[in-house]
Amino acid sequence: MKVYLITIGDEILIGQIVDTNSAWMGQQLNLNGAHITGIMTVSDEAESIVQALEQGLRFADVILMTGGLGPTKDDVTKKVLAEFTGGRLSFHEPTYRRIERFFKQLGRQPTEAHRLQSYMPDNATLLTNPMGTAPGMWFEVDGKVIVSMPGVPYEMKALMQKEVLPRLKAQYPLERIAHRTLLTAGEGESRIAERIADLEDALPPHIKLAYLPNLGRVRLRLSSRGSQSDQYQDELEQWANRFKERVEDLLFGEEEDRLEAVVGQMLKARGLWLSTAESCTGGYLSHLITSIPGSSAYFLGGIVAYSNIVKQEKLGVRTATLETDGAVSEATVREMVAGTLQHFGGDIAVAVSGIAGPGGGTPEKPVGTIWLAVGDHNMTEAYLLKAGKDREKNIEYTGAHALNFIRRFLKKHYPASLANG
Amino acid sequence: MKVYLITIGDEILIGQIVDTNSAWMGQQLNLNGAHITGIMTVSDEAESIVQALEQGLRFADVILMTGGLGPTKDDVTKKVLAEFTGGRLSFHEPTYRRIERFFKQLGRQPTEAHRLQSYMPDNATLLTNPMGTAPGMWFEVDGKVIVSMPGVPYEMKALMQKEVLPRLKAQYPLERIAHRTLLTAGEGESRIAERIADLEDALPPHIKLAYLPNLGRVRLRLSSRGSQSDQYQDELEQWANRFKERVEDLLFGEEEDRLEAVVGQMLKARGLWLSTAESCTGGYLSHLITSIPGSSAYFLGGIVAYSNIVKQEKLGVRTATLETDGAVSEATVREMVAGTLQHFGGDIAVAVSGIAGPGGGTPEKPVGTIWLAVGDHNMTEAYLLKAGKDREKNIEYTGAHALNFIRRFLKKHYPASLANG
Repeated sequence: MKVYLITIGDEILIGQIVDTNSAWMGQQLNLNGAHITGIMTVSDEAESIVQALEQGLRFADVILMTGGLGPTKDDVTKKVLAEFTGGRLSFHEPTYRRIERFFKQLGRQPTEAHRLQSYMPDNATLLTNPMGTAPGMWFEVDGKVIVSMPGVPYEMKALMQKEVLPRLKAQYPLERIAHRTLLTAGEGESRIAERIADLEDALPPHIKLAYLPNLGRVRLRLSSRGSQSDQYQDELEQWANRFKERVEDLLFGEEEDRLEAVVGQMLKARGLWLSTAESCTGGYLSHLITSIPGSSAYFLGGIVAYSNIVKQEKLGVRTATLETDGAVSEATVREMVAGTLQHFGGDIAVAVSGIAGPGGGTPEKPVGTIWLAVGDHNMTEAYLLKAGKDREKNIEYTGAHALNFIRRFLKKHYPASLANG
Repeated sequence: MKVYLITIGDEILIGQIVDTNSAWMGQQLNLNGAHITGIMTVSDEAESIVQALEQGLRFADVILMTGGLGPTKDDVTKKVLAEFTGGRLSFHEPTYRRIERFFKQLGRQPTEAHRLQSYMPDNATLLTNPMGTAPGMWFEVDGKVIVSMPGVPYEMKALMQKEVLPRLKAQYPLERIAHRTLLTAGEGESRIAERIADLEDALPPHIKLAYLPNLGRVRLRLSSRGSQSDQYQDELEQWANRFKERVEDLLFGEEEDRLEAVVGQMLKARGLWLSTAESCTGGYLSHLITSIPGSSAYFLGGIVAYSNIVKQEKLGVRTATLETDGAVSEATVREMVAGTLQHFGGDIAVAVSGIAGPGGGTPEKPVGTIWLAVGDHNMTEAYLLKAGKDREKNIEYTGAHALNFIRRFLKKHYPASLANG
């Protein structure tokens, strides 16, 4: 199956928005064995959209469009699509009812713009949008498929997963492609490459290895093409196991596992309560932890000790420590762990203090110097992280490492056999 | 001047890399008055590149290409470009000397791949790449321009700024384009559209309005083409003012302002210290606040009161309140504000408690029910938010609204005249 992606929107042409939709769609389609032949962004004028559709049909069986849908009037997409595919717009009662219900739930009334939004091409199959008011539209023209989705990323993703991908898989014979993804944390791409160089060289030609690094984590993805038979599946599994053995100490999960969920599972299985104390990450770490549904079963709470006075008064960090060692120091994060355990009364605490930048660096402690500590009522372990110069990246990088340090602490001091026994 | 952007690379088609180059180039070109008619990404096969070039020439005077150059890529791009523009590849001594010098500086020897890299189309003007080994190439064909640059972002940026933009400006009479962007929070796209429908209808044809919605915020962008004279600039400013008056209560900033920075500026100007208490947002709100460099000048700290025990013990929420009204209630967030002010000793506190989902909803309090409160030592105002069903989106949506409620509270109870006086 050949697929062409079309993104509609002046805001992308002038660089006000980066087109992340196409990258996400490309990933999903590629994982499902589709071949993406091109990506095009055009303005939301009728002529441009028509030309993009013509181009797409030349090079693909399927066109997936995003953008150009929504309640305001600068949208011409629906009209163009109806005309291009030989249909016409007509008022669609069920869509209007859906919009009405959607707004009633929010305690609001739909507007005249929403009424106009309920005019749909009469030749389209409408795809339910669980996250918004504009449905997706599925057209079939001369044996080819054109799908139009809203440009809001979470709406597009929901439509892709619930409607578009299942329908495409049912309609097109996709090349079988199997993947196994190993998730590691704690080492960079090149270190890992060194460790597994001989295994990588020995891979058969139909199995490829990709390194996908992101903020202190590296995903290792093995892909096997043409894996129709069980024999191929077994072979891929065997290779995955060989790689797993090599990176066992770094491995925190597989496939779509999230580190914050893995840590959550570990805490829950062990019946431990976590609390956090954050300075430079400013709440980002507890945000990661609580982004997991059900995290209230193991997360008590956290304190964002942004000012020194909060570190002293709420977490009992000693004035002497702040004066001698400084707020960004091993001694401070160790005292923060002790204070957090006392403050919240839980079992495990993690503390972070660092210089996220851009200001606040010194020759001895440049921007990117981050201290972390993880501990329980018996022992505390501290770690020094040397991050970069970009504030936003430093915060995300530190959050990921903090989670990994909790994981390592639990693995070392609360082995699974004890938790299960 | 009409410009078409072409990006070459399989890694972008399969979503392994997000194409940020095009967004940056779009911004720069738009600021300089160029009109971007399309962006296309294709694979690094000869046929695809030729088709992209043909498409680009149909819709633009200038094609800017990135990617497909460099020592590890095969040199398809250069060969295709030479053939397409009527030239041929020949060994280019000065380029090889440059590469040799570049590597000597790094203490290394150029490889055979670098020798091959020194074959250049004989009809191209070569543009010096100050950041890498592959030069840019400038072709002129039938009065149109095709430029090829490496895909490495900092190499492309250096070439654009030092070579490509100055040459384009010298060669083409650029249309002037001006933008004014108004940033609003608190109402959706369609409500705003209703409010300003008559103004939008009255806009002259050379001024366009775009709605750019994102999580409770809507950007309104006015663009004026052909604004050569001061008269046009004044006209755009007058229209911007008319729109501003209409959405005055929703307006939190202009152009690139961020709501978290605007709130920070307001607190700083008034000499007020903020603290936060978060339940369902789990640290996301304090993360937004502390994502701004210098936020330690007005943000004391926050507490993530994820469990009821923390709400009771640290924030003094009464057991009776939790039992009668529940953790997600106006009474609870009001008590949380009082408790937070006491806990941290600051001037302004914000509290959030809600059901982010997917679990925890009831018929009376479905998922998406969020209570917020903002207060100082004299008064507290509470707000009920009805969000959707998606946990991640609800957290981000609530964070944005919380910031906007702080802004409104400050605007109402701490008017700027007092802050300045």
